[in-house]
Amino acid sequence: MNRRTPSGAAVLRPGITAAITDTVLAELVERGYARLSMEGVAKRAGAGKSALYRRWHTKQEMVLAVLAELSVPLADVEDTGSLRDDLRAMIGAVAAWLTEPPFSRILPDLTAEANRTPELAEAVAATIGEPRRALARPTLERAIARGDLPADTDLEMAQDLMAALIYWRLVVRQAPAEPDYLDRVTETVLRALGASTK
Amino acid sequence: MNRRTPSGAAVLRPGITAAITDTVLAELVERGYARLSMEGVAKRAGAGKSALYRRWHTKQEMVLAVLAELSVPLADVEDTGSLRDDLRAMIGAVAAWLTEPPFSRILPDLTAEANRTPELAEAVAATIGEPRRALARPTLERAIARGDLPADTDLEMAQDLMAALIYWRLVVRQAPAEPDYLDRVTETVLRALGASTK
Repeated sequence: MNRRTPSGAAVLRPGITAAITDTVLAELVERGYARLSMEGVAKRAGAGKSALYRRWHTKQEMVLAVLAELSVPLADVEDTGSLRDDLRAMIGAVAAWLTEPPFSRILPDLTAEANRTPELAEAVAATIGEPRRALARPTLERAIARGDLPADTDLEMAQDLMAALIYWRLVVRQAPAEPDYLDRVTETVLRALGASTK
Repeated sequence: MNRRTPSGAAVLRPGITAAITDTVLAELVERGYARLSMEGVAKRAGAGKSALYRRWHTKQEMVLAVLAELSVPLADVEDTGSLRDDLRAMIGAVAAWLTEPPFSRILPDLTAEANRTPELAEAVAATIGEPRRALARPTLERAIARGDLPADTDLEMAQDLMAALIYWRLVVRQAPAEPDYLDRVTETVLRALGASTK
């Protein structure tokens, strides 16, 4: 592409500036996706509306860019070579993402909104879900290669398992969990996958 | 209790009348919990406000009474004596509850609302979650008694498993599922529980 270098106010700083990120998160927590507006974010962040519209065409694009920038790297967990340790680390990272503010406040609202708007659901999957799963998948593939998981492991089910139990217990049910709950989830997932590391 | 029999308009018909039930469900689907009001329900159902307030003190009570009356009986699945068949039937019933209208539209919104309001979360658990779990638990206890499940089976985790995968895949992710998805979930749950019926 042939791009000329913009000057002055038109220069876009790389990444998403802290003020906009913080404001988008605060608005999502306090008001929810449906009532958030680009105008409201610009005003609260002390930025011009045009500064936002130069970066994102729509509210959906803006919100998902902010959420993806913070959510995707959290799925990048170090591969230790031990399936149990890797699963425990991944499950711990998923639990932190799903259950700690601000995401614990944002994700249930975003899920409800995506349930009304299939286009939003697809965009959430494309910008957050799939990139997160792509980061975690090699760890499972290496476990298969080592023989710690069956060769025919259903990777999508495996990845669902790591988030599903936590989301259901702690976010949907909001039920209490034992101190060793994440360890128990890890053992449950290992059994569910037919792992040979017992 | 010493109750006098009310007469005329004050007589409360047993159960929840169809008009109120249908209206509460429609309002939850179309407007969501936050914007539903007892006044709005009374008007749309063609009932007097007093008819509603005689039954329920608050919107929360009314909504949960309607949802519980429809949700709880769905968890009452016939016990076949075969763990695999029982789990498959329970998982099928949970999937129908979570993924078919009107509940597929109502539950994500209710979850988001309960996330903002701990009191609502507790009431949902008391009126819907716990009664549903109490209905399904004896089937698992019989499987333990038969030796099909380990004696130390974590029943709460077992019950979470039956809903969690489905909710995560089909409601949160809104991802496609293979035609045999519920069978695969059943096999995954059997393995996760260390079931001896293979």
